[in-house]
Amino acid sequence: MSNILIRGGTVVNADQAFQADVLTQDGKIIAVGPNLQAPAGATVVDAGGQYVMPGGIDPHTHMQLPFMGTTTMDDFYTGTAASLAGGTTSIIDFVIPNPQQPLMEAYQTWRGWAEKSAADYGFHVAITWWDESVKRDMGTLVQQEGVNSFKHFMAYKNAIMCDDETLVNSFKRALELGAMPTVHAENGELVYLLQQEVAKRGITGPEGHPLSRPPTVEGEAANRAIAIAEVLNVPIYVVHVSCIESAEAIARARARGQRVYGEVLAGHLTVDDSVYRHPDFAIAAAHVMSPPFRPKAHQEALWRGLQSGSLHTTATDHCTFCAAQKAAGKDNFAKIPNGCGGVEERMAVVWDEGVNTGRLTPSEFVAVTSANTAKLFNLYPNKGSVSVGADADIVVWDPAGTKTLSAKTQFSKGDYNIFEGRTVTGIPSHTLSQGKLVFVQGDLRAERGVGRYVKRPAFNANFTASKLRADVMAVGAVKR
Amino acid sequence: MSNILIRGGTVVNADQAFQADVLTQDGKIIAVGPNLQAPAGATVVDAGGQYVMPGGIDPHTHMQLPFMGTTTMDDFYTGTAASLAGGTTSIIDFVIPNPQQPLMEAYQTWRGWAEKSAADYGFHVAITWWDESVKRDMGTLVQQEGVNSFKHFMAYKNAIMCDDETLVNSFKRALELGAMPTVHAENGELVYLLQQEVAKRGITGPEGHPLSRPPTVEGEAANRAIAIAEVLNVPIYVVHVSCIESAEAIARARARGQRVYGEVLAGHLTVDDSVYRHPDFAIAAAHVMSPPFRPKAHQEALWRGLQSGSLHTTATDHCTFCAAQKAAGKDNFAKIPNGCGGVEERMAVVWDEGVNTGRLTPSEFVAVTSANTAKLFNLYPNKGSVSVGADADIVVWDPAGTKTLSAKTQFSKGDYNIFEGRTVTGIPSHTLSQGKLVFVQGDLRAERGVGRYVKRPAFNANFTASKLRADVMAVGAVKR
Amino acid sequence: MSNILIRGGTVVNADQAFQADVLTQDGKIIAVGPNLQAPAGATVVDAGGQYVMPGGIDPHTHMQLPFMGTTTMDDFYTGTAASLAGGTTSIIDFVIPNPQQPLMEAYQTWRGWAEKSAADYGFHVAITWWDESVKRDMGTLVQQEGVNSFKHFMAYKNAIMCDDETLVNSFKRALELGAMPTVHAENGELVYLLQQEVAKRGITGPEGHPLSRPPTVEGEAANRAIAIAEVLNVPIYVVHVSCIESAEAIARARARGQRVYGEVLAGHLTVDDSVYRHPDFAIAAAHVMSPPFRPKAHQEALWRGLQSGSLHTTATDHCTFCAAQKAAGKDNFAKIPNGCGGVEERMAVVWDEGVNTGRLTPSEFVAVTSANTAKLFNLYPNKGSVSVGADADIVVWDPAGTKTLSAKTQFSKGDYNIFEGRTVTGIPSHTLSQGKLVFVQGDLRAERGVGRYVKRPAFNANFTASKLRADVMAVGAVKR
Amino acid sequence: MSNILIRGGTVVNADQAFQADVLTQDGKIIAVGPNLQAPAGATVVDAGGQYVMPGGIDPHTHMQLPFMGTTTMDDFYTGTAASLAGGTTSIIDFVIPNPQQPLMEAYQTWRGWAEKSAADYGFHVAITWWDESVKRDMGTLVQQEGVNSFKHFMAYKNAIMCDDETLVNSFKRALELGAMPTVHAENGELVYLLQQEVAKRGITGPEGHPLSRPPTVEGEAANRAIAIAEVLNVPIYVVHVSCIESAEAIARARARGQRVYGEVLAGHLTVDDSVYRHPDFAIAAAHVMSPPFRPKAHQEALWRGLQSGSLHTTATDHCTFCAAQKAAGKDNFAKIPNGCGGVEERMAVVWDEGVNTGRLTPSEFVAVTSANTAKLFNLYPNKGSVSVGADADIVVWDPAGTKTLSAKTQFSKGDYNIFEGRTVTGIPSHTLSQGKLVFVQGDLRAERGVGRYVKRPAFNANFTASKLRADVMAVGAVKR
Repeated sequence: MSNILIRGGTVVNADQAFQADVLTQDGKIIAVGPNLQAPAGATVVDAGGQYVMPGGIDPHTHMQLPFMGTTTMDDFYTGTAASLAGGTTSIIDFVIPNPQQPLMEAYQTWRGWAEKSAADYGFHVAITWWDESVKRDMGTLVQQEGVNSFKHFMAYKNAIMCDDETLVNSFKRALELGAMPTVHAENGELVYLLQQEVAKRGITGPEGHPLSRPPTVEGEAANRAIAIAEVLNVPIYVVHVSCIESAEAIARARARGQRVYGEVLAGHLTVDDSVYRHPDFAIAAAHVMSPPFRPKAHQEALWRGLQSGSLHTTATDHCTFCAAQKAAGKDNFAKIPNGCGGVEERMAVVWDEGVNTGRLTPSEFVAVTSANTAKLFNLYPNKGSVSVGADADIVVWDPAGTKTLSAKTQFSKGDYNIFEGRTVTGIPSHTLSQGKLVFVQGDLRAERGVGRYVKRPAFNANFTASKLRADVMAVGAVKR
Repeated sequence: MSNILIRGGTVVNADQAFQADVLTQDGKIIAVGPNLQAPAGATVVDAGGQYVMPGGIDPHTHMQLPFMGTTTMDDFYTGTAASLAGGTTSIIDFVIPNPQQPLMEAYQTWRGWAEKSAADYGFHVAITWWDESVKRDMGTLVQQEGVNSFKHFMAYKNAIMCDDETLVNSFKRALELGAMPTVHAENGELVYLLQQEVAKRGITGPEGHPLSRPPTVEGEAANRAIAIAEVLNVPIYVVHVSCIESAEAIARARARGQRVYGEVLAGHLTVDDSVYRHPDFAIAAAHVMSPPFRPKAHQEALWRGLQSGSLHTTATDHCTFCAAQKAAGKDNFAKIPNGCGGVEERMAVVWDEGVNTGRLTPSEFVAVTSANTAKLFNLYPNKGSVSVGADADIVVWDPAGTKTLSAKTQFSKGDYNIFEGRTVTGIPSHTLSQGKLVFVQGDLRAERGVGRYVKRPAFNANFTASKLRADVMAVGAVKR
Repeated sequence: MSNILIRGGTVVNADQAFQADVLTQDGKIIAVGPNLQAPAGATVVDAGGQYVMPGGIDPHTHMQLPFMGTTTMDDFYTGTAASLAGGTTSIIDFVIPNPQQPLMEAYQTWRGWAEKSAADYGFHVAITWWDESVKRDMGTLVQQEGVNSFKHFMAYKNAIMCDDETLVNSFKRALELGAMPTVHAENGELVYLLQQEVAKRGITGPEGHPLSRPPTVEGEAANRAIAIAEVLNVPIYVVHVSCIESAEAIARARARGQRVYGEVLAGHLTVDDSVYRHPDFAIAAAHVMSPPFRPKAHQEALWRGLQSGSLHTTATDHCTFCAAQKAAGKDNFAKIPNGCGGVEERMAVVWDEGVNTGRLTPSEFVAVTSANTAKLFNLYPNKGSVSVGADADIVVWDPAGTKTLSAKTQFSKGDYNIFEGRTVTGIPSHTLSQGKLVFVQGDLRAERGVGRYVKRPAFNANFTASKLRADVMAVGAVKR
Repeated sequence: MSNILIRGGTVVNADQAFQADVLTQDGKIIAVGPNLQAPAGATVVDAGGQYVMPGGIDPHTHMQLPFMGTTTMDDFYTGTAASLAGGTTSIIDFVIPNPQQPLMEAYQTWRGWAEKSAADYGFHVAITWWDESVKRDMGTLVQQEGVNSFKHFMAYKNAIMCDDETLVNSFKRALELGAMPTVHAENGELVYLLQQEVAKRGITGPEGHPLSRPPTVEGEAANRAIAIAEVLNVPIYVVHVSCIESAEAIARARARGQRVYGEVLAGHLTVDDSVYRHPDFAIAAAHVMSPPFRPKAHQEALWRGLQSGSLHTTATDHCTFCAAQKAAGKDNFAKIPNGCGGVEERMAVVWDEGVNTGRLTPSEFVAVTSANTAKLFNLYPNKGSVSVGADADIVVWDPAGTKTLSAKTQFSKGDYNIFEGRTVTGIPSHTLSQGKLVFVQGDLRAERGVGRYVKRPAFNANFTASKLRADVMAVGAVKR
């Protein structure tokens, strides 16, 4: 029996914050209340002046991603270890089958890679092609493997891009199964055109990357995916919303009563597109990811989305390529491997820019860093809450602690940090994963392979975008 | 020691729903979990197939309201008894001083009237005039009396209407005190003009009422109050949002990151303005309240506001005048006492039109009928949640139960029911107040005088509309 | 030398209305002013108490359209004769090549069919497929044939539907040529799915038609086409906007400064979707067109678009199939030939519902029935204005005249009238085409074959959606 | 008989541009067409490569304004002379009665001052108080004096501010008379409060000016005035729209079909609020006007309003105080006389930033610099068009000409230029006023006292905001 007593802190959940001690045992929270007694042998953590919050959940990471003949720097061990150092105790990564590759085969491959994880994890599975086997395997994944979400890339023409026909087929199947469709929203046809147009103008460096993927391209795709979801009556989750246009597409749909959810990356909230014009190729290229970083006005719009509740989760799209890998696109920005890190910094960056500025309350911070994700992907309240019976995945947050973020001091294996040099106030002092102290005042104690695959159950009969379409259909045929 | 064990139901809170038993003792919930044992002597309620939810909170009632030389039919006893029959276990009523009347005097008067209540209650206090004594009394009310919200009427010219100067003064004081300003949003100057214009056209019946208070008049006032709150940096709560125009004013402000909240009445969600053209004066007049019922398109907009999270609470503005009282305006619609009932029917009407249609999940129903109100007025989690330590104010909800709403069968003392003849599916089978069964399968056991005045603490230092204005000011003076 | 003097009326142009006589000679207007003298032999038209306006231009007709092995009832002679009876003196019809058919071949075919026209006409040419020959022929059409607009169907999967790749190619080419791309905005993939879904529910009658083409499907496509146009920096014109969703997509883009234009049909402005549930199949089927008629709220939104200037032109999509032809879809609504009439009634219906209700002034009526179309398709001021030098295409409008619209009394060859039984106030008393009186107080004097093909010049160098994209690109490459 | 022939230019009107010569005689345009012959003795202006456009109309100037015991630097002569130098041939200035001053008295005073004008002029009359005499004098002004517009200040508490009651009374009267109500939209109550709040924070310099008048304050007032106009069914014109908030209030109303018009100043389109933090008090103070200059994002929104047609006119609020006058607010920004120049630079600045950037076509430039103003204030087509019969107020515009704007070279008597140092491309080469060359290639030939007062007729029976309210009222009383 292993106990940890977190004493003297302010427990923060998405619905309330209150003074209480928290006691864990064997990986679970067994008591939350004032003046709890420490069992014999319990480890006591002094949380005086600190917040005791659910460990972060990052719903968008790519650890150990094979891409263009190379693989990201962080594997599932180093990536999850870095996440624990930042107060994030769970990730949801992606299985991405090649077109024509059986889904189950890809799924098993990724499951194998993930066994070395130091923190709990799950998988979204991408639908990159369509036939009857894909349809069947989606059923197997939902019903037997605990996958309740599928990803669709609307960009990357001639590779993993879904056309409208595949979106329609897959969304329809997801609805039958009670699984959440998610989309990477960029119009691949326009990106393809613009990459050529930009090149024609003699722009070959990373500054061409945002020119080839303007906000309109993202807004269009988000609007389209949402329309398809509305017609099919299935909820939808838009990953990495980076701009006003897609944030507004989501807000418009929500204002019509549609169940649409939006995710935003810590990077898009805080980094602007001036990075692509950095005179040092390595630095400019290090920021190449899709959608790209945007002009500043977009960042404010993303914050407002989180504040008003039209955006719901924060993530990172953690996907670390080093300078040598990025150099593949030295002469053609379209060949720079897409991806940036962040899983280690997300919590601190969102706190610093969100809570310290008054945009978010601590409870709203918990909502957008763990609770909402847990609810949307059916992990709640085991994950995403500090409550009796929940997993003891907890971060003790020191609102007065400060840190200067840097590639030099990060645990992540990338060689670059998109938050380089930013000093944040508000950092984790302790992280508990499965009831164990895995990070203590800067000391990372992550263990390879102890992370567990977490099954996420399908959604139930109430899983619809809204009943409006159904009602319309229900009027039935006219007797003539 | 008195125990009640609610066994076999589905507990529904705003954040989740799950199978669990609920055990109460001495007015509090002491356990929530599977397979709880009934203590000796405990009363057992079989909740099989039913939902166990927090008792409703109606944040907008007027019991025993003196008005135009007469008083509403329901006093605090009959009104709260009716509310318990409908599954609502708390109300927040209004203290409305006459202009020039000391606030504390009015407050004490209302406290006296309310002593006969059968359910717990609190008070918003209206600011109907301004001087230094009003400013001082606001402090006393917040700091000593547990009042954390103040009401402002923007209509009723030459009576209780606040002009912009008073709004500014009062909102500013509310911010200092950590109290929520609330507004009845209608432009009183325009209503005054339109009442005369309508009369000039020879319209004297109740059909003139909505003509004199069109949606524009409400939308303007809501927008203005929100702007004043934004400039002063204080959150704001708009009562009885009845139309697209004011719902959009709120949504716009929220999309800018401002903390604005909206309340909607069960009546406005389900009744349209055709009632005012009913050939029977008594029926038409029975629906006279302000803002008036609206054309159907507005109802859909209000539902969408609840669905998307831009509107937050449901209420009733319960204020019952009988036909004899309404007859005072027989020859002039402007003299018909304003008010309708609903405290008894709100929960069932919102369930039937909200949950049964798929617009709301059961958890969202809890949010808009109790939890959000509890959070916004600092009653949470004692009220608004089924959790250990909370008040044992609980409704056991039978989703298969049906009832036809009617003045003939209602407990409320009004002689009219704006939901007359509507058959709802989903009704309370049991209501617990302070851990006692006060309503059991149609049997109302409300006790006069057992209701308690509930103090609501002030909000803390994070109580702002947003920090944007503050940040702007913070740039400071230029050195010249 | 043939002269007509229109005496004593109020000349109405899009920019002003004023008392003046109008004198024509040899097909042209030669004087506009007070107290003009009639030349010897001139015909004098008494326009006292009437408006003298530019003849209507209908930018969207399908005369003599071959479809599903049959052809519309109105050919170019009967169709244009009917238009003259209604005060419309020009049409722009469509050349619709089959996929793989050379554009020039289709164009010549339509030119041949149109030789029998009684009024002036032009052609939009549809792009239904893509290869180098299509690209080349677009150039020939613009530079040699006076075609300055191309049409794209986003619906009709497996037939004439354009995918995004074709849209991109064609829009890009149109920009080079100074030609306006136009779109029929409906997502063909979703229509295809919904037709099957509706059929699966056992709905085979015309009531299935609107269920298979809900507003979302139109709004999505409009938004997508506009986004593509924005990225390519080409203006765009959306034909037959029928619903709130697409009207808002246009308004949003315009509010961003993009040059987007919208057309609305007289039918969509005034007829609602209840027609599809008519118990008589023939009547229900007679209304089958795409996009379908919509619930009433959409009509008000379309009027508002015309009033606020976010929609620009009115048209009819005149395409008349008779009951025998419509019967082809007796057992399957998807096989009912799509199309309705209206070219004869448009002016009167828009006047009656637009001007008589106060929504539009007479000048705004001229803007939306002729002047805007003339400007957008480069026919102005020869068409669309009553001014010296302009074509003598004039309608003398009697604002007090009334008529009951009916298939029994119409000149058009269709056997149905979607405005059947509607009595309008405001009708043409005289129509002049090419300076000849072709309609006089109910007497139609249209002549077969006198209508002229009107060349429409390409747009000039200022022809862009906006210069924002161009500005962005202009920043150029970073020197590294 | 005096003739001028403008030869070889491109005539630009709001509806079209075309190659033509223009011939004037005795102050009127008598011919527009190709290859016109110069009458004997005619002056010939070579307009080759240039645009021939209607002279600008500035609908918002304050010449010779008495204010705080001093008077603006430009009187009606120097101010109108400066305007002619910039291509603006008419102004509409303001009569501003003191509260309690008879309207007619103030009107006669201003008429006297204006007799020295060098260009044509009219007056809006401000309603600064209300009684029966004001109501009566409004009638006299409209019916006898050719005033068809009234101005209302919603700011300047304790001075000329209108409360809602006065707005309602005056708007109602304006509707009866067929006169356009106009508003300066800022919530005076909030400005009053904020001036004190800013002072309390120790900010006394010009940087406090924008802090005391944030965009919300303007947006609220615009929304309120528009709502009042909607309820009263009168059109409304909002002067100097400076920010997103009020531009959106106008756009929202227009999208509902309401007749609302917006004016924007050349300064607000191009100057941002950084000027208030200039270390030199004189420079910062020189920019103090209300509403203040705004952060850059607002400028883009104003341009978009002009592009999309939700804003209609450009003006200057020309009101020149010199440094010595501005110094009155040395220790208190609230005492700095409000006002900036611009009447001389408006046309060039709007061309340079509007046409050269591709935001506006030349025809759209004419619309927003003269034609729309002429239409909205009933001066069209005598003013605002180059057409036969119109006043010969013409500017010959050299699109290749350049000039660096500066106080040193301006004709205006102010000692500051808010466009100081800006080099514009596109300037007037010649200005004709009343058919005389008053500005030729930099040579100003303005004559004192030749300007004429221009009567502007009342609007006719179609003058309504929309007929929606009227329709609602029209349903009438219920028979009971």
